[in-house]
Amino acid sequence: MATEVASLSHEDCWDMLQREEFGRLAYSLDGEVHIVPINYAVDSGRLVFRTAEGSKLLAVLRGGTVAFEIDDIGDEWASSVIVRGPASELPPEDARWADQLRLRPWIRSEKQYVVAIQPTEMSGLRYRLHRPWTSMFPQP
Amino acid sequence: MATEVASLSHEDCWDMLQREEFGRLAYSLDGEVHIVPINYAVDSGRLVFRTAEGSKLLAVLRGGTVAFEIDDIGDEWASSVIVRGPASELPPEDARWADQLRLRPWIRSEKQYVVAIQPTEMSGLRYRLHRPWTSMFPQP
Repeated sequence: MATEVASLSHEDCWDMLQREEFGRLAYSLDGEVHIVPINYAVDSGRLVFRTAEGSKLLAVLRGGTVAFEIDDIGDEWASSVIVRGPASELPPEDARWADQLRLRPWIRSEKQYVVAIQPTEMSGLRYRLHRPWTSMFPQP
Repeated sequence: MATEVASLSHEDCWDMLQREEFGRLAYSLDGEVHIVPINYAVDSGRLVFRTAEGSKLLAVLRGGTVAFEIDDIGDEWASSVIVRGPASELPPEDARWADQLRLRPWIRSEKQYVVAIQPTEMSGLRYRLHRPWTSMFPQP
């Protein structure tokens, strides 16, 4: 019998983080939870992304812990990696290195600030998917 | 020139919410932000998902506003819809209807609680993607 859900090893989590380039960032600002898709890159054990001025940057500057998720969803299996940790703006001398990273800008705009998430918690799961409605009547 | 980023109409957002079945839920618990992938269905203008006992349910029972995101990422374009609103556990008489919804269980487990997010904010964006590194040297 196949396992329904399995934990990903730390190494598998990092492999998936290296492979993907889009994730979703959750952060809190003024007591409100926000979520936003971001593109990111892995650099020296951190997750790096660019941002313009706005609520994402504000949340980071206030020093909160953020949560980040990537996933890979197929027909039979889905994998998800969740990372939590503090985010901080990189100083200019480090931020310049971000130009060398594989960061796909969503849009051609000035995103001047480079932010790094330092993972303090990381977990990954691989799920076997079921689609019970494929045997339901009427078919959707 | 193609538009780099465009807002999705309210109707487009709902169309995409109807089409997708996986999203990511962000919630706050004890001042900490969490993110988790969920499968959901649209029912009567609400987003409905199942959950077992745990931090998701606790956050909901404490009545907080949650944030929810879905996306569709292609080679040239990406779309994302973000929803925010209060989440609440459905009473048993409503929860029974959830059995008729197209909710794909991630795993075969007892997820007894049915939660509905009532959207109070909704926004969607469609982005044109760029991959500057495809013209960079050396190629990644």
